Amino acid sequence: MTGSPQPDRPVSLYPRALLRPGNRGPLLLLDQTLLPSEEVMLELGDAAGVAEAIRALRVRGAPAIGLAAAHGVAVEAERLLEAGADAGKWERGVEEASRELRSTRPTGFNLSVCLDRMERVLVESRNRPLRDRVDALAAEATRLHEEDALRCRRIGEAGLALLPPGGGTVLTHCNAGALATGGIGTALAPVYVAREAGIPVQVLSCEARPVLQGSRLTAWELHRAGVPVTVIPDSAAAAAMALGRVDLVIVGADRITANGDTANKIGTYALAVLAARHGIPFHVAAPVGTIDHSLSGGGAIPIEERDADEVRRGLGRLTAPEGVQIWNPAFDVTPAQLITSIITDAGVLRPPFGPALSSLAEGV
Amino acid sequence: MTGSPQPDRPVSLYPRALLRPGNRGPLLLLDQTLLPSEEVMLELGDAAGVAEAIRALRVRGAPAIGLAAAHGVAVEAERLLEAGADAGKWERGVEEASRELRSTRPTGFNLSVCLDRMERVLVESRNRPLRDRVDALAAEATRLHEEDALRCRRIGEAGLALLPPGGGTVLTHCNAGALATGGIGTALAPVYVAREAGIPVQVLSCEARPVLQGSRLTAWELHRAGVPVTVIPDSAAAAAMALGRVDLVIVGADRITANGDTANKIGTYALAVLAARHGIPFHVAAPVGTIDHSLSGGGAIPIEERDADEVRRGLGRLTAPEGVQIWNPAFDVTPAQLITSIITDAGVLRPPFGPALSSLAEGV
Repeated sequence: MTGSPQPDRPVSLYPRALLRPGNRGPLLLLDQTLLPSEEVMLELGDAAGVAEAIRALRVRGAPAIGLAAAHGVAVEAERLLEAGADAGKWERGVEEASRELRSTRPTGFNLSVCLDRMERVLVESRNRPLRDRVDALAAEATRLHEEDALRCRRIGEAGLALLPPGGGTVLTHCNAGALATGGIGTALAPVYVAREAGIPVQVLSCEARPVLQGSRLTAWELHRAGVPVTVIPDSAAAAAMALGRVDLVIVGADRITANGDTANKIGTYALAVLAARHGIPFHVAAPVGTIDHSLSGGGAIPIEERDADEVRRGLGRLTAPEGVQIWNPAFDVTPAQLITSIITDAGVLRPPFGPALSSLAEGV
Repeated sequence: MTGSPQPDRPVSLYPRALLRPGNRGPLLLLDQTLLPSEEVMLELGDAAGVAEAIRALRVRGAPAIGLAAAHGVAVEAERLLEAGADAGKWERGVEEASRELRSTRPTGFNLSVCLDRMERVLVESRNRPLRDRVDALAAEATRLHEEDALRCRRIGEAGLALLPPGGGTVLTHCNAGALATGGIGTALAPVYVAREAGIPVQVLSCEARPVLQGSRLTAWELHRAGVPVTVIPDSAAAAAMALGRVDLVIVGADRITANGDTANKIGTYALAVLAARHGIPFHVAAPVGTIDHSLSGGGAIPIEERDADEVRRGLGRLTAPEGVQIWNPAFDVTPAQLITSIITDAGVLRPPFGPALSSLAEGV
């Protein structure tokens, strides 16, 4: 991985999904599609490049997508200024960049939240010189990034209390780790904090077909950080639970509705049903910003269906016949009733989630 | 696919995993490792070639493995005769072929049953001319093949009653179809029989990571037979059920114990738990020979753990980092309590399975 650590932080064991040193120049983005074989840091100098990176899953995970988009707006603002755009052209260009970035992925909520913040800065800076507006946008993207890192840390500290005091095995799905955020992750944050505290914790990581974020990304970042990790096919999670190999489940969330229903990577719902059957706690870890108070329940969450080729030839080889149908939903919805707790940067929420989530909304 | 249909049967919509036209010459065996990209029918002229095909999973599925081995003995017997072997050399050669074939997949139950039958013919034909003995072995292999096809047909007819009269959607896992047997399969047999009867049935086929027998094989054979099939990642089964897209589940079985507990491809247990949660019938289809009366419950079934590389680089690309642990169990156990019925060639069994299975044992 290229790029120097930010000066105000110690060198981290955790990989960076994206960074923009000094709030200037291109966005550096780790191409996650190449992991675990290659570590390539892309330099993205315009919003179109960032949008492509989001659509192609070079960066993924709801928080990281939101941050990439925010940086994408800032990068585009700088590019337009340097290309000599006048005020009108610059503003239309930045607005267009935000629109394009907003359209990249439908399910995650952070993307909208981050772009709303960027657009507010765009509006509020309207009477200032372009150079100042570019700087204000860059500063806002970095502020979003640092806020996210802090939220991850708080989630990790809150979630630590849910781990067995002597350590244990966490089952997780997909990647809700450092690679999915601007910090130490959401679902993996308690694992990293436990690791720092010397608590022996290990992770069972489901592969997460079809894109294999669990085996390619979660296993990679945990192994890199020295956390013992075992990869299992998604279909082996039930057997692992039946054999007593799982102490708790922690997953991330792409969107949480007002009643606690949670959208997350396809397969999460199955893990929740299986955990309930085996009496295993099932926790969702997510920043408060993941909560969409405008939706009363999970049935209203738009579920992205992705391209059939992720299943048919996702690994460069034909794995399903040409001509057969593929159903490739990216997410499913876990009903609140199956969730033991929601670990947020504002603390651990317990059922019933409706009132707890509602009080968070009032606090915002 | 090469090879002519056998004269006593109509041209079939169902692929043949293996056939030996006229009980003479090489065994024709469809190389399933190349599906769905290529349809290559191997011509195997000796037992060593058949043993290699079994070890390399060119043929798989417990019934098909047993039949391939039986034909392998017959092919070797003919080869030795044509090579001019005397009676002693011929007999030692055939015995050695049977031993080698028996060692290919040591846990296979049908494999032993088929080779025991072949060896009995070898012993009983001892006083006859070599040409007659070769013919007797070829005839026995073909008889085993036809018996298996008949069992599949009976399973299909018995299972037909479990489909909604107006048709519907069957979810299945892995491949328990024509490619796994000498006939129309076990789990897929009711689907094919329904199709023949003009009942509109469609199939949701889980991929079955890591080897993808569902997407590579089940989807291929159903598509070829004109049955509408949709491939889903294993992790999408829960969402499909929650959305009302599954009317019933039918899976195969590798071993059924005396109480009805069933070992089958990893992931089957999760489907059973999910089906129970959604009120969806969960059926196991298997010939009576799959029942192991010597084991009282599923806890006693040995579970094969397969090579980590099936997960780490099963598709020719690194999908989990070098150095991380992999857990790759081939099977899991579904407790009898989660099984709605067991569809056998002796009819449909209903809970409690213990007495029903026990009466089958007495009937044998």
